[in-house]
Amino acid sequence: MKKVLVINGPNLNFLGKREKGIYGEESLEDINNYIRAQGEKLFIHVDFYQSNFEGSIIDKIQKDYMNYDGILINAGAFTHYSYAIYDAILSVPTKFVEVHLSNIFSREEFRKQSVISKACVGSICGFGKFSYVLGLHALKEIFLEV
Amino acid sequence: MKKVLVINGPNLNFLGKREKGIYGEESLEDINNYIRAQGEKLFIHVDFYQSNFEGSIIDKIQKDYMNYDGILINAGAFTHYSYAIYDAILSVPTKFVEVHLSNIFSREEFRKQSVISKACVGSICGFGKFSYVLGLHALKEIFLEV
Amino acid sequence: MKKVLVINGPNLNFLGKREKGIYGEESLEDINNYIRAQGEKLFIHVDFYQSNFEGSIIDKIQKDYMNYDGILINAGAFTHYSYAIYDAILSVPTKFVEVHLSNIFSREEFRKQSVISKACVGSICGFGKFSYVLGLHALKEIFLEV
Amino acid sequence: MKKVLVINGPNLNFLGKREKGIYGEESLEDINNYIRAQGEKLFIHVDFYQSNFEGSIIDKIQKDYMNYDGILINAGAFTHYSYAIYDAILSVPTKFVEVHLSNIFSREEFRKQSVISKACVGSICGFGKFSYVLGLHALKEIFLEV
Amino acid sequence: MKKVLVINGPNLNFLGKREKGIYGEESLEDINNYIRAQGEKLFIHVDFYQSNFEGSIIDKIQKDYMNYDGILINAGAFTHYSYAIYDAILSVPTKFVEVHLSNIFSREEFRKQSVISKACVGSICGFGKFSYVLGLHALKEIFLEV
Amino acid sequence: MKKVLVINGPNLNFLGKREKGIYGEESLEDINNYIRAQGEKLFIHVDFYQSNFEGSIIDKIQKDYMNYDGILINAGAFTHYSYAIYDAILSVPTKFVEVHLSNIFSREEFRKQSVISKACVGSICGFGKFSYVLGLHALKEIFLEV
Amino acid sequence: MKKVLVINGPNLNFLGKREKGIYGEESLEDINNYIRAQGEKLFIHVDFYQSNFEGSIIDKIQKDYMNYDGILINAGAFTHYSYAIYDAILSVPTKFVEVHLSNIFSREEFRKQSVISKACVGSICGFGKFSYVLGLHALKEIFLEV
Amino acid sequence: MKKVLVINGPNLNFLGKREKGIYGEESLEDINNYIRAQGEKLFIHVDFYQSNFEGSIIDKIQKDYMNYDGILINAGAFTHYSYAIYDAILSVPTKFVEVHLSNIFSREEFRKQSVISKACVGSICGFGKFSYVLGLHALKEIFLEV
Amino acid sequence: MKKVLVINGPNLNFLGKREKGIYGEESLEDINNYIRAQGEKLFIHVDFYQSNFEGSIIDKIQKDYMNYDGILINAGAFTHYSYAIYDAILSVPTKFVEVHLSNIFSREEFRKQSVISKACVGSICGFGKFSYVLGLHALKEIFLEV
Amino acid sequence: MKKVLVINGPNLNFLGKREKGIYGEESLEDINNYIRAQGEKLFIHVDFYQSNFEGSIIDKIQKDYMNYDGILINAGAFTHYSYAIYDAILSVPTKFVEVHLSNIFSREEFRKQSVISKACVGSICGFGKFSYVLGLHALKEIFLEV
Amino acid sequence: MKKVLVINGPNLNFLGKREKGIYGEESLEDINNYIRAQGEKLFIHVDFYQSNFEGSIIDKIQKDYMNYDGILINAGAFTHYSYAIYDAILSVPTKFVEVHLSNIFSREEFRKQSVISKACVGSICGFGKFSYVLGLHALKEIFLEV
Amino acid sequence: MKKVLVINGPNLNFLGKREKGIYGEESLEDINNYIRAQGEKLFIHVDFYQSNFEGSIIDKIQKDYMNYDGILINAGAFTHYSYAIYDAILSVPTKFVEVHLSNIFSREEFRKQSVISKACVGSICGFGKFSYVLGLHALKEIFLEV
Repeated sequence: MKKVLVINGPNLNFLGKREKGIYGEESLEDINNYIRAQGEKLFIHVDFYQSNFEGSIIDKIQKDYMNYDGILINAGAFTHYSYAIYDAILSVPTKFVEVHLSNIFSREEFRKQSVISKACVGSICGFGKFSYVLGLHALKEIFLEV
Repeated sequence: MKKVLVINGPNLNFLGKREKGIYGEESLEDINNYIRAQGEKLFIHVDFYQSNFEGSIIDKIQKDYMNYDGILINAGAFTHYSYAIYDAILSVPTKFVEVHLSNIFSREEFRKQSVISKACVGSICGFGKFSYVLGLHALKEIFLEV
Repeated sequence: MKKVLVINGPNLNFLGKREKGIYGEESLEDINNYIRAQGEKLFIHVDFYQSNFEGSIIDKIQKDYMNYDGILINAGAFTHYSYAIYDAILSVPTKFVEVHLSNIFSREEFRKQSVISKACVGSICGFGKFSYVLGLHALKEIFLEV
Repeated sequence: MKKVLVINGPNLNFLGKREKGIYGEESLEDINNYIRAQGEKLFIHVDFYQSNFEGSIIDKIQKDYMNYDGILINAGAFTHYSYAIYDAILSVPTKFVEVHLSNIFSREEFRKQSVISKACVGSICGFGKFSYVLGLHALKEIFLEV
Repeated sequence: MKKVLVINGPNLNFLGKREKGIYGEESLEDINNYIRAQGEKLFIHVDFYQSNFEGSIIDKIQKDYMNYDGILINAGAFTHYSYAIYDAILSVPTKFVEVHLSNIFSREEFRKQSVISKACVGSICGFGKFSYVLGLHALKEIFLEV
Repeated sequence: MKKVLVINGPNLNFLGKREKGIYGEESLEDINNYIRAQGEKLFIHVDFYQSNFEGSIIDKIQKDYMNYDGILINAGAFTHYSYAIYDAILSVPTKFVEVHLSNIFSREEFRKQSVISKACVGSICGFGKFSYVLGLHALKEIFLEV
Repeated sequence: MKKVLVINGPNLNFLGKREKGIYGEESLEDINNYIRAQGEKLFIHVDFYQSNFEGSIIDKIQKDYMNYDGILINAGAFTHYSYAIYDAILSVPTKFVEVHLSNIFSREEFRKQSVISKACVGSICGFGKFSYVLGLHALKEIFLEV
Repeated sequence: MKKVLVINGPNLNFLGKREKGIYGEESLEDINNYIRAQGEKLFIHVDFYQSNFEGSIIDKIQKDYMNYDGILINAGAFTHYSYAIYDAILSVPTKFVEVHLSNIFSREEFRKQSVISKACVGSICGFGKFSYVLGLHALKEIFLEV
Repeated sequence: MKKVLVINGPNLNFLGKREKGIYGEESLEDINNYIRAQGEKLFIHVDFYQSNFEGSIIDKIQKDYMNYDGILINAGAFTHYSYAIYDAILSVPTKFVEVHLSNIFSREEFRKQSVISKACVGSICGFGKFSYVLGLHALKEIFLEV
Repeated sequence: MKKVLVINGPNLNFLGKREKGIYGEESLEDINNYIRAQGEKLFIHVDFYQSNFEGSIIDKIQKDYMNYDGILINAGAFTHYSYAIYDAILSVPTKFVEVHLSNIFSREEFRKQSVISKACVGSICGFGKFSYVLGLHALKEIFLEV
Repeated sequence: MKKVLVINGPNLNFLGKREKGIYGEESLEDINNYIRAQGEKLFIHVDFYQSNFEGSIIDKIQKDYMNYDGILINAGAFTHYSYAIYDAILSVPTKFVEVHLSNIFSREEFRKQSVISKACVGSICGFGKFSYVLGLHALKEIFLEV
Repeated sequence: MKKVLVINGPNLNFLGKREKGIYGEESLEDINNYIRAQGEKLFIHVDFYQSNFEGSIIDKIQKDYMNYDGILINAGAFTHYSYAIYDAILSVPTKFVEVHLSNIFSREEFRKQSVISKACVGSICGFGKFSYVLGLHALKEIFLEV
């Protein structure tokens, strides 16, 4: 069974409490349970990590990357300015897939630019919690390629 | 069984002949066969349309949108300047998902901007032909929501 | 009796089906009938041409310009990037008037720039189908000047 | 009979004296007489106001807007930077139509941007004094809609 | 008792008539009465001046600055382009505080830049008519410092 | 008695030690004592939180927002790039007021843009420690409105 | 004897009171007397006009241009945004020379751009009140050429 | 004998009718005859293709590239925005040389940027119909190198 | 003996593991040992601090600056956006020297801008681990100057 | 008697041969003779130096600045990019006045920016050879001030 | 027999030593011999001039232009910033053709802009030493036109 | 013993005379003597070259590069626009280190961009004359690596 880590960035722990028009009513825990269940159907064990700290996300990547076959990252607002996370992704061999709940291209101007896309294999946005499941499918396909 | 249309834009009919380092060795027909087969596993019937003409793509969307439950679009280079295709997507109720073979964020500068993303539900790039399969998964999920 | 050609660009054939909040509920045919009737009151015979193809619009201008005393053009999304249509207008002696249904200055950022205005006598936008009728009035006035 | 106010901004009182290649040989009074006569044919009574003062134009709008069914505004050079006039137009319920004698898109770079277009129903430029008459036609059509 | 002048720029005399969703339902007179009353509680006598004329505001500053211990200025749309008012503020020793009814950072793009902030002691926006009262508090504090 | 939290961002714990020409000689503790005392006069209990960590500020907002009737935030240098704090403010219902000691518009270019203003009710800058007291006044007024 | 008009824009009536480091200690009256005396040596009669109103400057140009052989204009802050004054200069045949007391290229960024230079014969800045005298010399030379 | 294809883009079929000041009086047929004759002197057989359709140009390249030893392309206005033609050139192994009749650097701003230059071996502009003959010379030299 | 602190920012703890083409094969520990040894030759005791947390770097600067005669800082990716670290450097009297392993001017576009250079005495980049040794030499020289 | 040096930059030695529409028909020698004669009337001895070499102009400034009471510089095209001449002017105590024959603000876009203005006392343009004479007047006035 | 001058700018004398991947292995002398020989076949006598000095190139143009029927210029890096050479070309009646060895559009960003193209008849790039021969062909054609 | 050349660009020969606040009081000769002495301690023989001519610096590099093991270059103002020097550095195999006396990042905006950094091994700025000594240390280290 393959192992995948899902990293969620700042404020994603507030899903279900925050701007429901954009992000829906489910909590992060609900979403994680859903992703875990979907992962099992794909024979992927999924672990979860969330932090509001850029440094913690980098530490997590550095400390645990070798324990996972792939990593899904929704860096939240860090997506738009954290070159440090971009560097962290580049510095480990594990494959990353960028995911977003909402379509980042139809919101505020600043959300249109991702500084981490270039370091990831690919990018998926706009499908709500199902974006993560698509990320799992994508990683599974990448595992097969290897 | 749901029906999905895959629209491919200019030069994608040259897959397998063109810049193989970026796009791989398979022809568009190979890829379409693969997508059709994957679609059947998801109980989705997939049709294909390719054109090097912006106008033909718009005509196709207008003429056939009502025959499909969802549309995957890889607009090729039109992605970066065809506001006419953007308008065409907005003008029909069918849901569109934007897909790209390569990670458009790690190539030439002009490929980083998509003028059609905003009109689509979401966007997927970087996973080769599997980007289309992810698009089918995404549409299937959207069908369930309705 | 003077003759005027009305050229409509991409997606305008979808009027009445598309974004009704912006473009109203009438079909292009309804609007054309209305313009034809208004034209007759002004002793102007009006013909209509619509295409989703940039090339077809250029062909039409080149082939038929000498059959008309003036041309009204609503280039749709081509307004914002088709330097080829700009060149086509410059390459024939017939007078062009640019028209738009909506006020292009109060919509998306990209709609604020028209690359064809400079090649036309003048520009009219924001009055729905009546923009075309104003265009007929304008051309009539221009015919008188000659 | 409907009433319309025509507001002309700075330097338009110098028509006929100033850059005749661009603006023609008629004086503002000549043009106003012409517009008044054309208005009568449309059963519209037209009043005229001209000022070189941004503040006077705002005062005029605020003091007299309720006496008119519609207002035509050629804000002259204020078109390109007077956000105060933009605010004044927004602050009254009367419908405004923006008019210009010349095609502002084929002159100096700075004339291509209008900061007031967005607050008006629509915009007409390039037809000399007939731009105002087109504005009257447009307002008449708007009156009918109400 | 200290004396403070409140200067309001273009269109602020239309408060209560204009865009009520943004500016509220009270008239400028209502607001001025409220500010005067609040001023008295702070032992500040408040005078009011409003003009739609950039020149009048400059004249007022030059003629009366020595009669006031401080000046609150809401320059309305002039905020965004009147370098002449910026110069006028610099040219007198009286302390200015910039105030705005609405949060100018959450509206149209052009409202985000103030060309006069740099010449004022500080800036307050977003609290409706209470922005002025905060300005009085701020000036009172500044008087104490002296 | 209402409760307000004051959040201070990076380097504000160094007040009194750092660039005294700009920020004055008092320490953060001195300033906090002053604000607490002023708060009591307004029947507001004030708590204080300072951190050099973006993540800690987000955690604090998420954990304690429900214990306060309003929050004053001086995000220090984070003001200019932390979209994560912007998102955190948006994600809770408590009202925020942005405050700055100095007039951010008369310093380095980069300090002129605040990425968090849009998420706050309003913004106050330039009055030294009294900016916070003005923030308390503003919040008190907002409490009354509710 | 030739006649020249000197037009001074906003805040120049405050010379001697305002920012003395930049503009010196003399009042506008002192400077005008000096210029008048210098003019007489050049057999030029000099009149003076100052206004803080953009509209008044335009009115003055339109009303009196035919009474002068040349005009010196120091438009103050209007230099940087008044396209209406630019148009006024273009609309009369009298020759204009642009003058500034200070070197506008070594001050704030916004002072580096003059929107009126293009409409003047030439431009002189940086020599204090002597800039005007140089302007008189320049006009005298231009009178000789004719 | 080598074979070369000359591709001409939109509006070039109107040579001789259109803006003669810039493009001369000869028709495209005249020019093609001239190029054909010059080609024969260089032992090059030249075929010609012109279209106003971006899609047709791409189709032509894809369908016939293997029948030619080199291709001269004057993409007309497509030069400035057709990334689809850029991609088409990249997707075939045949060598392309970009040619223009006029010096594109001394005309409108938008003509200064070519989005296809990068995909061609080299670029020649400014010599009227002789630009094509230079292109033939260049291709001949390239054939020799191989 | 003088004391110097070396601060390394995010991902520098991954040296030797990460992009070896750019950063070489040695670990941070190897490099630190080398620097320590080189420091001893210069009679400088060197301490080391590394963190992936922006806040930790600021805390470290604030807590320990008085224990060091100088500080070398390689802020990693924070170099390009952390105005908070810029402020931290400004807020303490200790001299900072900016160092980088690679030549930041010959890599990705975003690495060309350093927001902290201005707050440092000087800047050294491109010499691998020897950049730090040059930093020690520079600080030694600065100590002598004092 | 005071001494002034006139420095002319590249291509000014071609006056009379070059673009006569802009620069007139006189040769540089004619103009120099004229300036010399005018200088004598002002009791100023004028020397002349022209070079097409940026380096020679810098050398000339460094070698001879102490022999002159003031320097007039028309740096020709160097005006627009030679920061080296800017530095040279800053590096000597002699006062410089920038002069241009034509109105640099009404020509090509690139001529609007001068990188040396900031280092000069003032700037004069647009009066043909009389610009130099105005420069002599300006320097004479500056000599008096000292 | 016609005479043509070939001007080569900075570093072109290092051909064969420098970046051979881009410029090939031949020395400038080799290339000149080749061009001379090719010129003779076209009945053109070719002279050569190379300098690393911007000023020398301008001097050469001014001193010798009348001895040549046409000039080929490869200004090397001066191409991208020397407005002085642009002016020199404008100042003489001889026809210039711009040539480059490499395709300047497929290299560093700064090489895409030529400030001298506009002053030349036309431009040729990308064909190695054969670019010069094409330039000779182009000049020969231009000689015939005269 | 290794040999190093120090190249100084325009105006550096005026050190000690020029802007002493920025560059200190020592002459270039003083500084060269100091560098020579320091070089000897490092067993490096140092030669010096200074020129105000861009072309001379290029000539010097081309003529003498093979006589030196490394070159230190302080290109003065050429740093900011001389792509010709950039090309010269690229065209020889000798290693270059860029040095500056002052911290170029804390001065005028234009000094922040170096067009030659990319062609050098590394860059050192801000340490006065000691920047050169650091450059010697850096080159010594590079010699060891080889």
